[in-house]
Amino acid sequence: MESHSVQILTQIFLMFAAAKVLAVVGERVKVPTVISEIVAGILIGPHLLRLVQVEEWTLALAELGAIVLLFDVGLDQKLTDLMKVGGTALLVATLGVIVPFFLGYGLLILREHSQAESIFMGAAMVATSVGITARVLQELGVLKTVVATIILGAAVIDDILGMIVLAVVSSLSEGVNYVQIASVAALAVGFTLFIVLAGRRVMRRVTPRVQRFAAGDPYFALAMVICLGLGVAADKIGIAAIVGAFLAGLVFSEEELTPRLKTNIHALREFLVPFFFVAMGMQMDVTVLARREILLLAAAVTLLAILGKLVGCGLGAYRLGWRSAVRIGVGMVPRGEVGIIVASIGLGLHTISNEVYAVVIIMVLVTTLIAPPALKLLFAERKPAPSPPSDLL
Amino acid sequence: MESHSVQILTQIFLMFAAAKVLAVVGERVKVPTVISEIVAGILIGPHLLRLVQVEEWTLALAELGAIVLLFDVGLDQKLTDLMKVGGTALLVATLGVIVPFFLGYGLLILREHSQAESIFMGAAMVATSVGITARVLQELGVLKTVVATIILGAAVIDDILGMIVLAVVSSLSEGVNYVQIASVAALAVGFTLFIVLAGRRVMRRVTPRVQRFAAGDPYFALAMVICLGLGVAADKIGIAAIVGAFLAGLVFSEEELTPRLKTNIHALREFLVPFFFVAMGMQMDVTVLARREILLLAAAVTLLAILGKLVGCGLGAYRLGWRSAVRIGVGMVPRGEVGIIVASIGLGLHTISNEVYAVVIIMVLVTTLIAPPALKLLFAERKPAPSPPSDLL
Repeated sequence: MESHSVQILTQIFLMFAAAKVLAVVGERVKVPTVISEIVAGILIGPHLLRLVQVEEWTLALAELGAIVLLFDVGLDQKLTDLMKVGGTALLVATLGVIVPFFLGYGLLILREHSQAESIFMGAAMVATSVGITARVLQELGVLKTVVATIILGAAVIDDILGMIVLAVVSSLSEGVNYVQIASVAALAVGFTLFIVLAGRRVMRRVTPRVQRFAAGDPYFALAMVICLGLGVAADKIGIAAIVGAFLAGLVFSEEELTPRLKTNIHALREFLVPFFFVAMGMQMDVTVLARREILLLAAAVTLLAILGKLVGCGLGAYRLGWRSAVRIGVGMVPRGEVGIIVASIGLGLHTISNEVYAVVIIMVLVTTLIAPPALKLLFAERKPAPSPPSDLL
Repeated sequence: MESHSVQILTQIFLMFAAAKVLAVVGERVKVPTVISEIVAGILIGPHLLRLVQVEEWTLALAELGAIVLLFDVGLDQKLTDLMKVGGTALLVATLGVIVPFFLGYGLLILREHSQAESIFMGAAMVATSVGITARVLQELGVLKTVVATIILGAAVIDDILGMIVLAVVSSLSEGVNYVQIASVAALAVGFTLFIVLAGRRVMRRVTPRVQRFAAGDPYFALAMVICLGLGVAADKIGIAAIVGAFLAGLVFSEEELTPRLKTNIHALREFLVPFFFVAMGMQMDVTVLARREILLLAAAVTLLAILGKLVGCGLGAYRLGWRSAVRIGVGMVPRGEVGIIVASIGLGLHTISNEVYAVVIIMVLVTTLIAPPALKLLFAERKPAPSPPSDLL
């Protein structure tokens, strides 16, 4: 084929292979896959080994990866389970969103960054990536405890709140306008409620009809059409495309055909999501960390990101006793995809600088890395009988 | 996100949704999905409704689709089954490749097209797309007959021969050089034998080790790394990337883990392959068909494509009696992905014109459309007892 298409294919191969090789290496030293993939991107990207460039098609592929990822995240939410933990989870999630946001925002305002950049920083510190925590809790065999249930419940609400925050910040292309923020927030909440309430009702009617078609897997095709379609719709009304994909996932999350759909989405995810994390790593200019002030900023932001969740979520769960409160706080510490997406949108809009982008990536890497050992420590002190729960799995 | 990424996402949505909507409509009138997807591309493409443009990322996505498609085609080959039909299938496939090639090549040479363009035309007429035929034979409940076994066996050899032809033509970037053709052909044959013989042996050793990793689906990841890697390797030695993907499929085709791998690949295929066929349709300039000479050329090429397989494959199967020979010939008539890929490579290299590209697309559409009813007719005369086999399915 023409030389350019050879080049694209070579880069696709390098991105995918690097992600998978680092994931295998990472697994040996118990590093979560997300981290390995971001590091793979940093390594092969234009700032270190220069094996791949950030081009238009790279970002297109990365966006497809992000959309599949967020659809899958939405698919995994259990809204009916959520109702059971209700109050406490809502409080944990809300305070766990508000406190880190204002800590991040405040820090950058104090350092005299622009209003918009400070808002992006706050927003990037909001959303918990609960996948890591859930896996650790599962390994420890404590997934059915009150603490775990509240963490998982709060993570669902936190995801939805995070999406609303994202919707608001992604509309901040020209400066900060509070009337606009309020209207986008209202729009985002309305869109979310509409999709979740109306969407599920519509799906319940459409599903039996779709079954009749035999060509390929019509249900999967329909899910992807709706996922991409809501992504485009979200984009058109001025909020991030992945918010639409997430809502599409929510719509399908409790359909009876979900298990088969999940198998398909997981295959897509396995192939496409690495391109997202690798591309996000590729966009990080590690060289800025050589500057002492940026390194200090990264340290401060990471510390505030940890404290923000510990204090915010801990306060929300205070009535369960301080021990449970700390566990819940630590469980909510890992940030992930949403924080990175917020930062990459900011980078795309030229609202945040390369330096702040690098700081966000560092914050995501560190919070994701420290939560699992911290959780294991906190839960270990609880068990007097030395029965290793890892044998149960 | 930034406006350009919105635009890309919108186009991705339009391509996917158009493919799926037309596939559903097509299914009602018994049109194969491939056709519906190509027609979707023609409709929304830059020559008719102008909803989407052919851009770099479109072609990158299409190439990923083609690679997944050919990997899956390779995965479906049963080389051990092939040994059983052996001789006849080999004769059917070889004559069925040679006759159409020279008919196509000869026609364009007579019309005074360039040497290279004529070779591309011949090459595009070579490869049978047996998926359509296999589905029809299955519907008719005759998949276990000698005729069906020979068709399927010949299709495997035909695919491999088609890949070698493709490898040769894709190296024709600067004029025609017979020494180069011979060396690429030797390289392609060697590469094929090496991958198939050595590849399987390597996989038998590697597979048990891969199993140990728990993160994600390591076997699927390995398969995709090898698929993309062999694609890049093929490209580097000057033959088409999809040849490498096809060979990767062959390597994995008889591994014990294939069923689970297939589930994953089918999900990828369901999502990515439509972009390939839609993009191929988008590149077809239907307006050239308004010119009488192009329409006549399309008719002539299509006729020769049908006659080529009927005569070539029929001759190869002559000793089974003329009735079986005709059935086998008709079963081999449908062209598909490989023909289109040959044409699109030619278009990318500026070796073939928009007109010839449109002619190839028409040939693929017509041969794919007429084979199923013709097969049903030919097999219907065989059944005296009126037991509708469609009830058995």
